[in-house]
Amino acid sequence: MNSTQYSIDRRDIRFVQKEFLRVQELTRLEGLSQFTEEDFDLILQEGCNFAEEVLAPLNKTGDQDGSKLTDGKVKTPAGFKEAWQQFGEYGWLGITSPAEFGGQGLPLSVAVGVLEGFFGANPGLYLTPMLTTGSAGLIVRFGSDEQKAAYCEKMITGVWAGTMCLSEPNAGTAVGDITTSAEKAPDGDHYLIRGTKTWISGGDHDFTENIIHLVLARVKGAPAGPKGISLFIVPKFRLDANGDPGEFNGVTTVSLEHKLGIKSSPTAMLEFGGDTESHGFLLEGENLGMSQMFTLMNEARYVVAYQGLGAAAGAYRNALAYANERIQGIPIESGKDPSAQRTPILSHPDVRNMLMTMKALVEGTRGLIHALGYYTDMLHHGPESTRQHYRDLVDILTPVAKNAGADQGFEAIRLGIQVLGGVGYTEEFPLAQHLRDTKIASIYEGTSGIQALDLVTRKLNLRGGELYMSLLKEISDLDEAAARSQGLSAAIVEWKSSLELLKATVAALGETMKTQGAREAVFNASDVTVMFGDVMCAYYLLKMALVAQDALEKLTGGQDAALKALESEETAFYYNKIKTAEHYVFQILPRIKGIEFKVRSGNYAALEAVLTTG
Amino acid sequence: MNSTQYSIDRRDIRFVQKEFLRVQELTRLEGLSQFTEEDFDLILQEGCNFAEEVLAPLNKTGDQDGSKLTDGKVKTPAGFKEAWQQFGEYGWLGITSPAEFGGQGLPLSVAVGVLEGFFGANPGLYLTPMLTTGSAGLIVRFGSDEQKAAYCEKMITGVWAGTMCLSEPNAGTAVGDITTSAEKAPDGDHYLIRGTKTWISGGDHDFTENIIHLVLARVKGAPAGPKGISLFIVPKFRLDANGDPGEFNGVTTVSLEHKLGIKSSPTAMLEFGGDTESHGFLLEGENLGMSQMFTLMNEARYVVAYQGLGAAAGAYRNALAYANERIQGIPIESGKDPSAQRTPILSHPDVRNMLMTMKALVEGTRGLIHALGYYTDMLHHGPESTRQHYRDLVDILTPVAKNAGADQGFEAIRLGIQVLGGVGYTEEFPLAQHLRDTKIASIYEGTSGIQALDLVTRKLNLRGGELYMSLLKEISDLDEAAARSQGLSAAIVEWKSSLELLKATVAALGETMKTQGAREAVFNASDVTVMFGDVMCAYYLLKMALVAQDALEKLTGGQDAALKALESEETAFYYNKIKTAEHYVFQILPRIKGIEFKVRSGNYAALEAVLTTG
Repeated sequence: MNSTQYSIDRRDIRFVQKEFLRVQELTRLEGLSQFTEEDFDLILQEGCNFAEEVLAPLNKTGDQDGSKLTDGKVKTPAGFKEAWQQFGEYGWLGITSPAEFGGQGLPLSVAVGVLEGFFGANPGLYLTPMLTTGSAGLIVRFGSDEQKAAYCEKMITGVWAGTMCLSEPNAGTAVGDITTSAEKAPDGDHYLIRGTKTWISGGDHDFTENIIHLVLARVKGAPAGPKGISLFIVPKFRLDANGDPGEFNGVTTVSLEHKLGIKSSPTAMLEFGGDTESHGFLLEGENLGMSQMFTLMNEARYVVAYQGLGAAAGAYRNALAYANERIQGIPIESGKDPSAQRTPILSHPDVRNMLMTMKALVEGTRGLIHALGYYTDMLHHGPESTRQHYRDLVDILTPVAKNAGADQGFEAIRLGIQVLGGVGYTEEFPLAQHLRDTKIASIYEGTSGIQALDLVTRKLNLRGGELYMSLLKEISDLDEAAARSQGLSAAIVEWKSSLELLKATVAALGETMKTQGAREAVFNASDVTVMFGDVMCAYYLLKMALVAQDALEKLTGGQDAALKALESEETAFYYNKIKTAEHYVFQILPRIKGIEFKVRSGNYAALEAVLTTG
Repeated sequence: MNSTQYSIDRRDIRFVQKEFLRVQELTRLEGLSQFTEEDFDLILQEGCNFAEEVLAPLNKTGDQDGSKLTDGKVKTPAGFKEAWQQFGEYGWLGITSPAEFGGQGLPLSVAVGVLEGFFGANPGLYLTPMLTTGSAGLIVRFGSDEQKAAYCEKMITGVWAGTMCLSEPNAGTAVGDITTSAEKAPDGDHYLIRGTKTWISGGDHDFTENIIHLVLARVKGAPAGPKGISLFIVPKFRLDANGDPGEFNGVTTVSLEHKLGIKSSPTAMLEFGGDTESHGFLLEGENLGMSQMFTLMNEARYVVAYQGLGAAAGAYRNALAYANERIQGIPIESGKDPSAQRTPILSHPDVRNMLMTMKALVEGTRGLIHALGYYTDMLHHGPESTRQHYRDLVDILTPVAKNAGADQGFEAIRLGIQVLGGVGYTEEFPLAQHLRDTKIASIYEGTSGIQALDLVTRKLNLRGGELYMSLLKEISDLDEAAARSQGLSAAIVEWKSSLELLKATVAALGETMKTQGAREAVFNASDVTVMFGDVMCAYYLLKMALVAQDALEKLTGGQDAALKALESEETAFYYNKIKTAEHYVFQILPRIKGIEFKVRSGNYAALEAVLTTG
């Protein structure tokens, strides 16, 4: 690893996948038995190579060039089209898509180890493949046989690209307020789509001959609000008799956004059905659009979680390398002796604190995100008897993971810039771009505030709180007696008391809802989501620390871990896993003490203040 | 105010200056009796106009154009040179400088209300004036009569500009390690300066005929480390017999940095004494450079505090305006009724929470920064008997204010982007640039980590802890009995218990130093500095709330404040002041509970981990 190039922590991902989650055992499940452990190893290997060697080198130039709109056509940065083609050719677009449409059908917990790297290496580029896979997935799930045959394989193999068209100028978060209209054509199976969509990632580009837009629109006469929304396939070019791109379908690029980051990604405003008719093809049936789109949205929220993770993980490795190579100052224990040996900044306690906080945020989030992938795999492929349990976990943890990845990822990058100091503020090092690129993660696919509302008002209450109960059950297995060091044992005890704080806070929210009302009950929803994220990340880190403890004992024969840690990269790796869990529990998790107090303070001054402007 | 233009909260600054600190009473002090209250009013008025009308309109174009280096010459963005000239002509460069050199000599607590706006309106532009004033101030303080006559007035009136040249490629934070050399010329009063300086803000530009660099260098044979450093005046062009710029003095611009923000500010690498000799003129005497430069550094740290404040304050006003105008969704208490009236996002509790957090961070920091300005004024102009007390406050609060302004300012801007959502991520709104520009504040003039070390290892221990005692004495006057509302009274009680937590934490640090050592004792220094910042900001907000409570009572005749708040902008202003203090105490300050736990946990896993790279 070095301080300027993107690289992936393959060792840590392998640990999470194979030593912690034991994903190789998924090959025993129905629908996954075609895979071997070696397949999974190879995927990780090759995916990381692709991210580091193909995607990462285009990240900075892509940011500098940006995507440009000229004469109605979008030009993407140099090299992007070629990288896109490799996405398709090498099967990365369809890594989790069904084999019948050209996908690889890999379990999510295996794929995510690679996907983290795709996003971290080049988020502006990866957005278009990601949305193509996602929108193809919607057609796989809800399309007619004819629609599937027409679109899915071409999208999953990268012949065509796809988008999601939800937002409009006056309907962003409140997607139920969209006004794009769909009117059944008198002479055919299609609808005429008319309206303007904004914030369309990969809305137009020069990667492919055709772009398949999935568009939310309101059929004339449909009920008001979210219940009257339908989902349409709207190709940029209509398919001719051979199924190839034919006539222009009236999808016009009005403008591209000028953004803080992900500048290489063309974020478009699209007009449908202006001078030329836009033909739309209904998915499944009228007025089913919102629930269909939410299927994709939940996947997209998971994707955003690993976007934050991938960037933060890269930033951590850059910062760690820099802290090892940059000589500055003398160790604090040398006092003011001007002749003392100069030291790498790694030795300064404040720098170490920041680095370990980055590491703990990255590895905690990686644990959470991989576990969520694993729960998804068990939901799809595991025994019938446990599917509801895993569905509960996926549902309740999706908003938690989205905010943890987005917000803690951003925070880790901010710390990375701080570790580098002055050079961190320049675009010569990758961290400044990571900061800019990653800021979007807390905004799109539902802002952090929306995730928090989803958790607090919906997920915690669904089925009488059973999702929450499933979660508590899942994390009830930590036992301090299993720890063989005082530090780890103390960390588990402290984590348990944090879990009690979380429970007390959730109970307090219910009480607030009863005694005060909805406004007060959701006031601290974002804080409570941080709390869930912290408790969960610490949980996975502690679980992993217990695994590492056993592995370390095997390697060292039970000798003093701190001493043996220095012997090899492997012993250091396991030793650090234990220290990382301790650091999270004692140096990050304590913030939930403040959150619990905030929630229970019952002070809602912010709701009382008069904030209308003069 | 609106969501896209920079504007200054003149009402709040007036409140802090005149109703809280009562700066008009400074006119009774020696050295300030030439001023009247009307003068102060006029300065605020005119300074805000200058910031909003001259500086702010150049901020975005300056960012887009950037400063460019071509053929060894720096070209600044369009309009910048003209704005610079106005800085000089209107007296803004010398707002606090002595009258004998063309300055206005205003008290800092008055000036800072204006300076916050200069920095917030256009940080990339303001850096050069700011450093010119600062470096001129060094010559005023330490220069010979001849040096003062040659440089000061020209700098303070904007004929020439100035810089501070400290850092070198291998000596940033560890400024004692600089290697730029100074050798007494055999034939004259000057020294020959040789070396390379980096990160020089305003290092070269096209504003002025001459640039006066203040350069740290090591005289041949001087002691190693900080004690062997001297400070030199090194003009870009040597002065001729008439005192005008003559021969080139060998200061070459090697490169400009490509930065995340403040792109309009030319951040230069300068070479001294390459092909052409660089003549340097010693300030005061050899080997006094570090303490001289620290005079300026402490002022610069204060300046950075209000840089963060100015940007955050602007971001808050943009976000507040946007939250009032952007219609999205329905109030949560309307449930899912699709026919419910759509609402400005201001009514959503999460948005309100973020806005009030921004407001509380901005106004708390403004209180701290203005108070620090006031203490500086009292130190310079107050009675001899209280000068040590105020010197103590200035010394201990400078690092606290620097981090509060820089880091809490950045956090407030981050929240502002979140309030705006998607559009906040575009460069169409000013928040993205504020985020980029303000990130530097936690890095330059000593990183946040360096401020924290200064507080914890130096300021807390100076003179046996007397600075800390002075601070505790200063803030011992809050009494819940003075509050006439339950909320404010409860907030004061809670603040007092937070102060006890702070004291316990400081005591714990001393204990850690004894029982564990320096590395452990400084491990949480940054956290402890946040704690000081929070306790202080909350203190000032509570003091201001008590002032507001009295003012509100006068206006409303003691009737129900919440109801009367809606009557006028004035009643709303005072009512909000009380609510802002409550919000800080119950929704921000609680994070110190986590910090206290972190410090006292005694877990230093980060110091034990093996973080050398493989």
